[in-house]
Amino acid sequence: MKKVLLASTALLLTAGFASAQSIELSGDANAGLKYDEDGNADGDELTVHNEINMTIAGSGSTDTGLTFGAFLTIDETDGLDDAEVFVSGVFGTVTVGRIDHATDSLGIADIGFDGIGLDDSAEQYKNATAGGPDILYSYSAAGLTFSASAEIEGDESYAVAVEYAAQGFSGGIGYITDNNEDDFEGLGIGSNETITVVAGYSQGPLSINGMYSDWNGGTAPSGQGYGVDVSYDVAGATITAVYSNAQDVAAGAGLGDSYGIGFAVPLGGGLTVAGGIGTVQRGNNFDDPDFGLGDLTASNGDRVVADLGLTMSF
Amino acid sequence: MKKVLLASTALLLTAGFASAQSIELSGDANAGLKYDEDGNADGDELTVHNEINMTIAGSGSTDTGLTFGAFLTIDETDGLDDAEVFVSGVFGTVTVGRIDHATDSLGIADIGFDGIGLDDSAEQYKNATAGGPDILYSYSAAGLTFSASAEIEGDESYAVAVEYAAQGFSGGIGYITDNNEDDFEGLGIGSNETITVVAGYSQGPLSINGMYSDWNGGTAPSGQGYGVDVSYDVAGATITAVYSNAQDVAAGAGLGDSYGIGFAVPLGGGLTVAGGIGTVQRGNNFDDPDFGLGDLTASNGDRVVADLGLTMSF
Amino acid sequence: MKKVLLASTALLLTAGFASAQSIELSGDANAGLKYDEDGNADGDELTVHNEINMTIAGSGSTDTGLTFGAFLTIDETDGLDDAEVFVSGVFGTVTVGRIDHATDSLGIADIGFDGIGLDDSAEQYKNATAGGPDILYSYSAAGLTFSASAEIEGDESYAVAVEYAAQGFSGGIGYITDNNEDDFEGLGIGSNETITVVAGYSQGPLSINGMYSDWNGGTAPSGQGYGVDVSYDVAGATITAVYSNAQDVAAGAGLGDSYGIGFAVPLGGGLTVAGGIGTVQRGNNFDDPDFGLGDLTASNGDRVVADLGLTMSF
Repeated sequence: MKKVLLASTALLLTAGFASAQSIELSGDANAGLKYDEDGNADGDELTVHNEINMTIAGSGSTDTGLTFGAFLTIDETDGLDDAEVFVSGVFGTVTVGRIDHATDSLGIADIGFDGIGLDDSAEQYKNATAGGPDILYSYSAAGLTFSASAEIEGDESYAVAVEYAAQGFSGGIGYITDNNEDDFEGLGIGSNETITVVAGYSQGPLSINGMYSDWNGGTAPSGQGYGVDVSYDVAGATITAVYSNAQDVAAGAGLGDSYGIGFAVPLGGGLTVAGGIGTVQRGNNFDDPDFGLGDLTASNGDRVVADLGLTMSF
Repeated sequence: MKKVLLASTALLLTAGFASAQSIELSGDANAGLKYDEDGNADGDELTVHNEINMTIAGSGSTDTGLTFGAFLTIDETDGLDDAEVFVSGVFGTVTVGRIDHATDSLGIADIGFDGIGLDDSAEQYKNATAGGPDILYSYSAAGLTFSASAEIEGDESYAVAVEYAAQGFSGGIGYITDNNEDDFEGLGIGSNETITVVAGYSQGPLSINGMYSDWNGGTAPSGQGYGVDVSYDVAGATITAVYSNAQDVAAGAGLGDSYGIGFAVPLGGGLTVAGGIGTVQRGNNFDDPDFGLGDLTASNGDRVVADLGLTMSF
Repeated sequence: MKKVLLASTALLLTAGFASAQSIELSGDANAGLKYDEDGNADGDELTVHNEINMTIAGSGSTDTGLTFGAFLTIDETDGLDDAEVFVSGVFGTVTVGRIDHATDSLGIADIGFDGIGLDDSAEQYKNATAGGPDILYSYSAAGLTFSASAEIEGDESYAVAVEYAAQGFSGGIGYITDNNEDDFEGLGIGSNETITVVAGYSQGPLSINGMYSDWNGGTAPSGQGYGVDVSYDVAGATITAVYSNAQDVAAGAGLGDSYGIGFAVPLGGGLTVAGGIGTVQRGNNFDDPDFGLGDLTASNGDRVVADLGLTMSF
């Protein structure tokens, strides 16, 4: 027998408590078709794709106004997708767990029901380090959000970001540095650092966002990623076009132009149909026996990717 | 502090919404003793068994009458048991994820609190292919259910089934084909195909169901599985007897007769005590160094299996 | 969109049912800093630590007064933390799944938000066997709890425990035996057995608990573990001091003195800040190529450990 969880009315019943606890379910899922000119490992160009994420989130507040919580997100691949613990107060919010760098929120949009990777080239430098941080701090006031993250163990990376949003305008700047000294693939990559800036503006049905990311990989390599997304709301749909580029030395995604266009139509109740088509650059194939330095400094050519499907949230 | 989920009354509170979302928990579990004459890997004939499945299911509906949802089922073995996404409308229901072939629902009953495998011989041919499908479509109207599934990637299998239920009578027919050309164990198995038919009738305390499944494995092998289950409700209990058989070439389960009898007594509130005892055929031991063609065309002998325990649903 | 689960008021709505079912969420989490003089595998002495446990628990009751249920606990490490099925009646409670030996509840306190291992030396003998049991039985009446557990498969261990609590006094005795004959590391460990006794007293702000555990490892080795914890409530905080010791032959944790002091301050709403510092004995390093019998009969020296962080329950 299934039990239906009660929605927002429960908040009214418990609002009288000075200190309170709650535990909540939420989720999202998608399903649809994905096309990749290069095909997957089995050689299939067209594949059926689905993702499911269900979150169990507990939270509470103390008599003195601290709020705190933790959540686990279970996905459809036999594993956890996310797990974080946070505590919040007048000092801001401190989060630990499977968190992202402070610079991770600086980016541009992707398109499609699942994403076709148009933003990958532009965003490949913004986190500048392989590992994730151990602790994230953020503070928001008057449209301004300051974030700082640190990877104390392992690579010892540190990141800060400042973001601002008001009256349709948004902007942000982030810096991350990684003290890890790796001689990656003979490239002499030492301590990495990246500066990323983003800016956006929206008015009425139109919104536009851009980013620029400048990576300095230490002794030798460097790379620059940049891109822009433009969205327009028309007749109940949102049309989004994305352009991104990366130059010099690749750091995961490909070098060169990527561009595409997509749409999203909300059908109500949390269901949206979305799709997109674009041309994206091939990334580096580290498994290729002929892989060499040149593969990091030249484009590996582009390929057509597309998707069409449904997203749902609960 | 534990939170109790509110049961069906929540539906009344939210029934006024044209488009709606909900997220639900449900679950089942079992616990008991299992006996197998052959013993497990440690040589134990009698083992304590338990299973737990908890499902987080989100669903919603749009203003235009589409319903949609997704669920994850977590089990007690460190993993996911199931994960599906569906969308439903006047056109029927489309499901993707960890789904079964359209022919999978055609079968007979097993007995016991956990199942002792009486149906395995009869049902070993009905899905005719190793992989699972990528997409399942079903449409139901006036007691008739039409299902079609396709494995687009990998083995390229396709299945259709039609089932009918009305006035105590039920019947179904299914067809599945697998275009994969494997020379399995030198048997020359090419593209498989199986036709399966089921029929059942229930009146008052008695119900009876039978199946026949005819597998054609391509150039050389073929197999036939068939079986029947009979259930009778008496004094608050349901007594079920099962007979099944398979002939020619084995496809996972054993060849020859399997039969047994079991009972189930609902105790109220979702708790049921159930058990069963039977004789089932040994399957093929592919790990045996002496394994050869003959093991697929001869019975490996039978063994006594039994179980006794509790099932519960939440 | 998140759904908030309704708390205890739901019980009132369903209390009228003779047989009933419910499915509940609960959880806990912690986050903080841990210090270990010996460092972790990466050589870091100071690490950021967090744990999250979310439990989905189903339960029900029959018309005849049986209660039953099952739960899964998901943790932040990609896996299940716990999974149990139980049935309860006037006869007591039977539990199967990932259960502990009947003797497992006999122990002393640890300190810190996550625990620094002060109790490990004293408690290393109490379960006397590597595997877990298959089935646990317990019965409680008038302050007395009797428990028995059995590992039917594998090591064939059996354990019983009796615990009593009334008027501030608590006491318990447990016995476990393991019929497994292992010649562990040339030590000639045969069938193990351990007797453990615990006693405690609390009055007003003070509580004190002690344990003594006597392990007989068969032909040659034996070991004794003992310890005491003392807690005092003052000004909204609980201060806890722990001392533990082990002698003769080590069985996992170290030999010799361990001691430390910690605190816990509940902040309301389920949030607690806690920490502790202590000196604990190093355990055995079985991976050391020079590992020999002497490492089990001598102290491997002590190290300073500490932690400081938050615990939260939902």
